[in-house]
Amino acid sequence: MTLQRLLNIDLPLIQAPMAGVQLHGLTAAVSNAGALGSLPGAMLDAAWLRHELTTLKSKTKRPYNLNFFCHQPPAPDEQREALWRSVLAPYYQELGIDAQQILPAPSRQPFSHEMADLVTEFQPAVVSFHFGLPSAELLARVKASGAKVLSSATTVEEAVWLQQHGADAIIAQGLEAGGHRGMFLSAELTSQLGTFALLPQIVAAVQLPVIAAGGIADAQGIRAAMALGASGVQLGTAFLCTHEASTSAIHRAALHSPAAAHTAVTNLFSGRPARGIVNRIIRELGPISAHAPAFPLATGAIAPLRSKGESLGHGDFSPLWAGQNVSGCKDIGAAELVAELALGFTH
Amino acid sequence: MTLQRLLNIDLPLIQAPMAGVQLHGLTAAVSNAGALGSLPGAMLDAAWLRHELTTLKSKTKRPYNLNFFCHQPPAPDEQREALWRSVLAPYYQELGIDAQQILPAPSRQPFSHEMADLVTEFQPAVVSFHFGLPSAELLARVKASGAKVLSSATTVEEAVWLQQHGADAIIAQGLEAGGHRGMFLSAELTSQLGTFALLPQIVAAVQLPVIAAGGIADAQGIRAAMALGASGVQLGTAFLCTHEASTSAIHRAALHSPAAAHTAVTNLFSGRPARGIVNRIIRELGPISAHAPAFPLATGAIAPLRSKGESLGHGDFSPLWAGQNVSGCKDIGAAELVAELALGFTH
Repeated sequence: MTLQRLLNIDLPLIQAPMAGVQLHGLTAAVSNAGALGSLPGAMLDAAWLRHELTTLKSKTKRPYNLNFFCHQPPAPDEQREALWRSVLAPYYQELGIDAQQILPAPSRQPFSHEMADLVTEFQPAVVSFHFGLPSAELLARVKASGAKVLSSATTVEEAVWLQQHGADAIIAQGLEAGGHRGMFLSAELTSQLGTFALLPQIVAAVQLPVIAAGGIADAQGIRAAMALGASGVQLGTAFLCTHEASTSAIHRAALHSPAAAHTAVTNLFSGRPARGIVNRIIRELGPISAHAPAFPLATGAIAPLRSKGESLGHGDFSPLWAGQNVSGCKDIGAAELVAELALGFTH
Repeated sequence: MTLQRLLNIDLPLIQAPMAGVQLHGLTAAVSNAGALGSLPGAMLDAAWLRHELTTLKSKTKRPYNLNFFCHQPPAPDEQREALWRSVLAPYYQELGIDAQQILPAPSRQPFSHEMADLVTEFQPAVVSFHFGLPSAELLARVKASGAKVLSSATTVEEAVWLQQHGADAIIAQGLEAGGHRGMFLSAELTSQLGTFALLPQIVAAVQLPVIAAGGIADAQGIRAAMALGASGVQLGTAFLCTHEASTSAIHRAALHSPAAAHTAVTNLFSGRPARGIVNRIIRELGPISAHAPAFPLATGAIAPLRSKGESLGHGDFSPLWAGQNVSGCKDIGAAELVAELALGFTH
């Protein structure tokens, strides 16, 4: 079955859910343009998500994708937290932040029955997960709602696992992709493959439709992904500068700057590896720190540095998520971007 | 100008030079099949290279590519060497190797006037370099011989540099590629891009023909690379198991095993980052060691472990170079492989 038919969309093009830089506005604009808009639910509580879904429903009748994270929440580790804060202490001092006032603030919640209630109520056409799939019980609730289920694979092994555990289509997330790596069977970064190697090997290993992600910036990239056997594509970075995204001015400026040529996979901002533009904190601490608390707990201690930094007009401590190819970032409306990308499907 | 015309070849397909696993046999077979065979000169002394070139000339009248490394030879560092040997000491003990008997053995020489003499004498149609370009004086000698000059870029910045410094075409070496990373302007591994992101950005940044490398395993991969704007492709891994390659039985077995699904960029075997299959020493020491002596000096201390290991029938200490997609490795003749890959150019 084609991805268009499976997901009931005109174009096999998915706007990647991007927690923190978009809400329903981008979702609606993309879905109304004939592609599949996504709404990231991971950083919203149930009340806020209900508000987003209600508004979204009033803005589009087209299918959309509701995205969740499905990690295991870690046990807080006071020792590790203290160590991490001592690593950050010089920055607290520099920015005049009272470290005693920082509260632990897990910013991302895994998919739950409360969220499944909203899926049942709002019946999104598609639900996608990052970091594998939720428990069989929760997954069954999503499936019972009628939603098609997507999840990301970063290795061939993960793709086979997702097929075996009930995904309806698989996103092959190449190493070029911005934001969090969807990896869930291994924490070993060397296991991560570039799109050129990952995509065709996943296509060969599974029967499900495969959606290519990572490094695709324009119609030409879409053509190449389709040539490698993809049934569709997912783009995130290209949507970061659209009018409807809520990407901060600092983040947008970074995406348009030469600095965007250098990204790194870093765990400093959340505790899990994610690709963003190399900024001061990545440069000074190195992109991967063994001291960063487990996902998503690392976010708590860095949040005040980010806030203070941004209030001073810089992104030295901000997660400037971006993939390895920002050439597709344009200050245009999402519908216009979808129209440009659609050319990638006309041979 | 097309790459075919620039290099005087039928197919814009280059067999990547692979020092240590091939000699003139593979070069001749590939060139005779209408693609561009490569002969790696980096690990041969002048007398041996002369022998190879003489034999090669008797086996093909077609254009071929002669490849060299052009690194700066490092100053030996006794302290670092001693530290590195202490890291390896448990393995010496396990394998019964007398560490006192190990001589420093730099195995790879940079391009020199002695090698340039051979270029002048044998006039290969193409000379390619890894790690940038040699000195202006040496490069002028190569150009005066009539050879077209290729070199690898692993970032957009390197591609622009190569264009400015006299390359005739640029190999865009994506992070998926096996063997040594051609990086030369930065030692920072996070600067390395996947093929999907690297290739179109280099194509957009330079006027020269761009040759795609990294993760391309078959005709489908070639089609995708051409869709991303490549003027041609370079494949190495796919040729590793051909009859004409001198790849060891241990290396071939690893390429055909499930272990080949997991490669890493490692500096343990030479001192410079190179992609190979994760084996025991990579697993135990980690792929990147700060203690490994500068390229190519790290090779000396690990060589006896490799030899002893291989004599015992395993590759625990061997560089098992491979890219991130070994699906194209077949036990066939190189001409047959070239014929299969040629389908990638007939849309």
